[in-house]
Amino acid sequence: MTSLGVALIGTGFMGKCHALAWNAVAATFPDVAAPRLVAVADVDIARAETIAASVGFARAEADWRAVIDDPAVDVVSITAPNQFHKEMALAALAAGKHVWCEKPMATALADAEAMEAAAQASGRVTLLGYNYIQNPAIALIRGILADGTIGALTHLRIEMDEDFMADPAAPFGWKSAASSGYGALDDFAVHPLSLLATLVGLPARVLGTVAKPYPTRPLAEGGERAVETADIASAFLEWEGGLSGLLAVNRTAWGRKGRIALQIFGAEGAILYDQERMNEVQLYEAKGPRDRRGFRTVLMGPEHPPYGAFVPAPGHQLGFNDLKVIEAHALLRRIAGETTLGVDFTAGLAIERTVHAIAASAEAGAWVTVGG
Amino acid sequence: MTSLGVALIGTGFMGKCHALAWNAVAATFPDVAAPRLVAVADVDIARAETIAASVGFARAEADWRAVIDDPAVDVVSITAPNQFHKEMALAALAAGKHVWCEKPMATALADAEAMEAAAQASGRVTLLGYNYIQNPAIALIRGILADGTIGALTHLRIEMDEDFMADPAAPFGWKSAASSGYGALDDFAVHPLSLLATLVGLPARVLGTVAKPYPTRPLAEGGERAVETADIASAFLEWEGGLSGLLAVNRTAWGRKGRIALQIFGAEGAILYDQERMNEVQLYEAKGPRDRRGFRTVLMGPEHPPYGAFVPAPGHQLGFNDLKVIEAHALLRRIAGETTLGVDFTAGLAIERTVHAIAASAEAGAWVTVGG
Amino acid sequence: MTSLGVALIGTGFMGKCHALAWNAVAATFPDVAAPRLVAVADVDIARAETIAASVGFARAEADWRAVIDDPAVDVVSITAPNQFHKEMALAALAAGKHVWCEKPMATALADAEAMEAAAQASGRVTLLGYNYIQNPAIALIRGILADGTIGALTHLRIEMDEDFMADPAAPFGWKSAASSGYGALDDFAVHPLSLLATLVGLPARVLGTVAKPYPTRPLAEGGERAVETADIASAFLEWEGGLSGLLAVNRTAWGRKGRIALQIFGAEGAILYDQERMNEVQLYEAKGPRDRRGFRTVLMGPEHPPYGAFVPAPGHQLGFNDLKVIEAHALLRRIAGETTLGVDFTAGLAIERTVHAIAASAEAGAWVTVGG
Amino acid sequence: MTSLGVALIGTGFMGKCHALAWNAVAATFPDVAAPRLVAVADVDIARAETIAASVGFARAEADWRAVIDDPAVDVVSITAPNQFHKEMALAALAAGKHVWCEKPMATALADAEAMEAAAQASGRVTLLGYNYIQNPAIALIRGILADGTIGALTHLRIEMDEDFMADPAAPFGWKSAASSGYGALDDFAVHPLSLLATLVGLPARVLGTVAKPYPTRPLAEGGERAVETADIASAFLEWEGGLSGLLAVNRTAWGRKGRIALQIFGAEGAILYDQERMNEVQLYEAKGPRDRRGFRTVLMGPEHPPYGAFVPAPGHQLGFNDLKVIEAHALLRRIAGETTLGVDFTAGLAIERTVHAIAASAEAGAWVTVGG
Repeated sequence: MTSLGVALIGTGFMGKCHALAWNAVAATFPDVAAPRLVAVADVDIARAETIAASVGFARAEADWRAVIDDPAVDVVSITAPNQFHKEMALAALAAGKHVWCEKPMATALADAEAMEAAAQASGRVTLLGYNYIQNPAIALIRGILADGTIGALTHLRIEMDEDFMADPAAPFGWKSAASSGYGALDDFAVHPLSLLATLVGLPARVLGTVAKPYPTRPLAEGGERAVETADIASAFLEWEGGLSGLLAVNRTAWGRKGRIALQIFGAEGAILYDQERMNEVQLYEAKGPRDRRGFRTVLMGPEHPPYGAFVPAPGHQLGFNDLKVIEAHALLRRIAGETTLGVDFTAGLAIERTVHAIAASAEAGAWVTVGG
Repeated sequence: MTSLGVALIGTGFMGKCHALAWNAVAATFPDVAAPRLVAVADVDIARAETIAASVGFARAEADWRAVIDDPAVDVVSITAPNQFHKEMALAALAAGKHVWCEKPMATALADAEAMEAAAQASGRVTLLGYNYIQNPAIALIRGILADGTIGALTHLRIEMDEDFMADPAAPFGWKSAASSGYGALDDFAVHPLSLLATLVGLPARVLGTVAKPYPTRPLAEGGERAVETADIASAFLEWEGGLSGLLAVNRTAWGRKGRIALQIFGAEGAILYDQERMNEVQLYEAKGPRDRRGFRTVLMGPEHPPYGAFVPAPGHQLGFNDLKVIEAHALLRRIAGETTLGVDFTAGLAIERTVHAIAASAEAGAWVTVGG
Repeated sequence: MTSLGVALIGTGFMGKCHALAWNAVAATFPDVAAPRLVAVADVDIARAETIAASVGFARAEADWRAVIDDPAVDVVSITAPNQFHKEMALAALAAGKHVWCEKPMATALADAEAMEAAAQASGRVTLLGYNYIQNPAIALIRGILADGTIGALTHLRIEMDEDFMADPAAPFGWKSAASSGYGALDDFAVHPLSLLATLVGLPARVLGTVAKPYPTRPLAEGGERAVETADIASAFLEWEGGLSGLLAVNRTAWGRKGRIALQIFGAEGAILYDQERMNEVQLYEAKGPRDRRGFRTVLMGPEHPPYGAFVPAPGHQLGFNDLKVIEAHALLRRIAGETTLGVDFTAGLAIERTVHAIAASAEAGAWVTVGG
Repeated sequence: MTSLGVALIGTGFMGKCHALAWNAVAATFPDVAAPRLVAVADVDIARAETIAASVGFARAEADWRAVIDDPAVDVVSITAPNQFHKEMALAALAAGKHVWCEKPMATALADAEAMEAAAQASGRVTLLGYNYIQNPAIALIRGILADGTIGALTHLRIEMDEDFMADPAAPFGWKSAASSGYGALDDFAVHPLSLLATLVGLPARVLGTVAKPYPTRPLAEGGERAVETADIASAFLEWEGGLSGLLAVNRTAWGRKGRIALQIFGAEGAILYDQERMNEVQLYEAKGPRDRRGFRTVLMGPEHPPYGAFVPAPGHQLGFNDLKVIEAHALLRRIAGETTLGVDFTAGLAIERTVHAIAASAEAGAWVTVGG
């Protein structure tokens, strides 16, 4: 595998996360060649320079177009604010680059559609930053589902809760403005939907509801402003074939920091998972002596690939950033023509369509067929 | 407080539970006089005789009317199958008895309405067997809500899951026949609704959905029969004033044995509870140093009345049957004119109306105003 | 089985607990005849009268000898302070009564030896109040050990921690005076030792250490008094055959309310248990696919006798008082000639000898052979 | 801060871990200059070359002396087998290099003493690979202890358990040979001792015991060989000032994968921690309303430095390898003259002396004064 040239756009939370992943991917996974770190771009050139210096990118740019046009660049990491994803991704694909774009894909469905079309047309590899699906624990759950251990699925529930919007005294910010989207639905629900897409596929019909726990928020300059986005969203889900489920997200859930709680029930068992204890999977099998049955807590270890690429000893724990390294590895292997777990622009568009269908159903107060 | 005469109708799971509670209530709570155990009635007279002998009821009867007509009886425990609740309760109230009736109140809304009207007309005390609300942990949660510790409520979720219908190979039983009601909704959801009624009141608007994970079940005599009830139900809930919530019940949830998981979020904190660990309440307060915040697991003890009536030492655990003893105590105090926690026929009717509204909304695929 | 006459001496924590158990035993377990509640004795006659009235004992006495001499009494519950156990037990046995005595057996080893000798000579049934061993969860652990599921035992640890002595500002009380015994060792360690006796037998060699976290405690009248008992004790344990283990007890452990944490390791698995979650047992089996192994939390249900005598539905939870009812049932069945789980005076003496050996080893700072 | 040249000796579990840390340290912590990755040495040159290529070290060497002699090297990571630590460290210090050496320091106490003396004489910075102490959770516990939140310490317990030696059918390996040391004591107990050294200091007096759960192990060539090391060790600990504690380690504990369970009790509260859930700390404060007290689970976040250097959002989890990056950062800051958390050769020698004192006390069956 030849070394690829990498450019990074954006230097925030996810910018640094991508930078760390690009830096670590070959050191962690010797089966891929170390990427060449070509350039970092950010309108805040000082931040770009800091990241470049500390991580080892060759240069920093204030203009993202400069890095996309660079022939030394093979792959572009897009971690700029969501409203720029479309423009950057289209430009990168047009320039023949592979694209690794943070979630959510775009702020409007039409944008996501344009991105997906461009990806299809380009023949380039795209990957969205749904790193939770890269957890060895999720791979284990996939394996359990695939081998029939818990039988045909009967029901599932998935919740995602954090508390970064829980304080009603926090001033009105851009996440409360309609320009940012629906609120928890696009900001948040795409994560659990990416897990569902990975594990059981996406639902065919949805019925949602949204709530604004704080109708107004204080303005920094005094007074209050009406909140335009919904911090809470819930949805009933139905799949072709009869599986039913529930999705619930809340970004005002005091005490929850990174909870993504999944419950999957089948005809012969059940699986539980919580992102706040991301190294554990709980499995119940409805077999064996009745007095010995229970949920079994499986702690991740080298038996759960690619855990062993990080630590050869079990129970020692992976962290959030490790998931991004696994994602970077998946991207490099995809570019090399292999099949890996991951959400490309086509799969990402399906997630976006589901989000928009939930929003439409909440508006209508009625079931909506996804993509219908 | 004078001693009351007690009759028990029914000798199944709840029959024995009432018997144990009548037997233990005064021994546990010295502030009430020990009831006189007058009679047990069951069409299976042998079972009635066994309970009478082992618990100390003075006599057994095959005909429930015989115990209702007995002037020595002041209170009647009704634990017979649900379809008999109405007839028995009306007869008992007509005979001037106080009534302690197991949940669900009745199998038809009209029956529940008739029972409520009779209770109102009678002036007698009625109590429904919603014993989960009698847990000292629930009283603690009420106290936390009442004193504003977690601020104005923003959202809640309540789940109730068991696995007694989870085995698809189990033969078709009466709970799968339409005559038993909606399924999980009346069999099950009344419990979480009783908790909501106790803690935050009942919702004003609902939107539900139901699912049949196993469309057919095997017949003992061979072949399959279509399942007529829904083992799974979910509902969005909205309260006057803006609180929103989620209700989810599932009686095919492998591995869940007696789960009632409650999450309550407020503007200043959150509360968690799970009936499978019924001696614990988790509380998060959004105050104090940020690096020391977290969910606090409060273990029940004598600080949480009436725990101390059972055990003077903390952390020693109450059990399910103890909740029924607390309920019996609440009933006796109500008869003595005091105010206690509990669901009488009027409050029970409100729960039934909520159940029926959820069923109607699921049928319509649209929001329904409760009692509207 | 004929009905037995019962007398209760003492009306404190354990007095009420015995009273509730005598009251509930036949109602819960129809295979035993309801005992006749003959008398309650307490030097505080008012308390005796209250218990008698509320629980249904026929009469109250200020003098415990009056109830022991009563020919209507077949069994005597001794729940008076520990220093009276010997005198009362000897008198009861001499009067031909069966004896149910609270733990610890006695405050001096010689007393325990005298009690055991008297029990042997009398031919009466004796039982000590080690109710934790009566938990269906402990019976499950016994079963797991017996059938070889976790293989030959390699190591164990048992901890017992509470916080009733944790506050250094609490005034000096009788538990800090040498007259009460060693401290945590006899007050406390007898419980974990009773569990070990039940599950794996008692150790052959011990080496202990004790600690006084608060050298003095305040006197109510002002000033401080030197603490004479040790609130903390730990011991290494060795069994014939090579099993090793650790015992650790602490009655100044803030936050612990009724913790008895047991870890048992074998050549093929492990078992975990904590009394603060007394309805759960965790089991690890070193077999099956390596990527699916983990500790399995088994929730007690009717598959775990005698849980079903209390509740026919799984996961509904037993409580502390239920364990005493099981113990009362075990006592009645023993009197009827059956074999049951339980610690009689002979087994209890072995526990006392272990306690005293640990104390002696702590004093010597060297290993001591128990009973040597 | 100027960039330092780094050499790595050894390419096993810890070799890769150091390599990843050297690779990530500056990318994660922009306050340090990125180290120059000069060379990797391993007798298995192919492995050295693989690591060099994947992580970006400039060259690979078969002879470790070649990298120590390289003037471009400022710091040497020693991750070769334990018996080589002394020779390598002495050579590196003699060559004027800073040394980052994996634990345990050495296989013989005299070797550790020689290493410490050499470090003192050299004026170079030394650091031992006790990465568990670098967890933000441990820093939080230090803070809690330092500000008096739980009052004066009364007692503590620390356990470390894994199951890599739990299978009795696994063939006899070098860890069972006397040449590897005592067994669990040096292989294992140094980790909990490093935590104690960091949090409360090391004990003054110890009394230990060791056990060999499997007296023999099978030989690959057939037959059995007597096990010479102890897989289990326990010790009583006493500190100057009266604090007492318990240390227990077991490398045959089925089901335990990376457990380091710490319980610290004080006069006003308690702290719990388990390495298997390394992002959580539990804190109990004996203040506030009694009915609201409980253990509070604090989830790590940016409030707990240096968590925020990895992820700006709370609850997203650090992993095991992140701790090594924090350790590398601590080393670089030490070299720059700052004070950081860490175990240097002087502190490491104190840990070794404690280990040897425990071994001596176990041999003698009597208390031993550490360093006495």
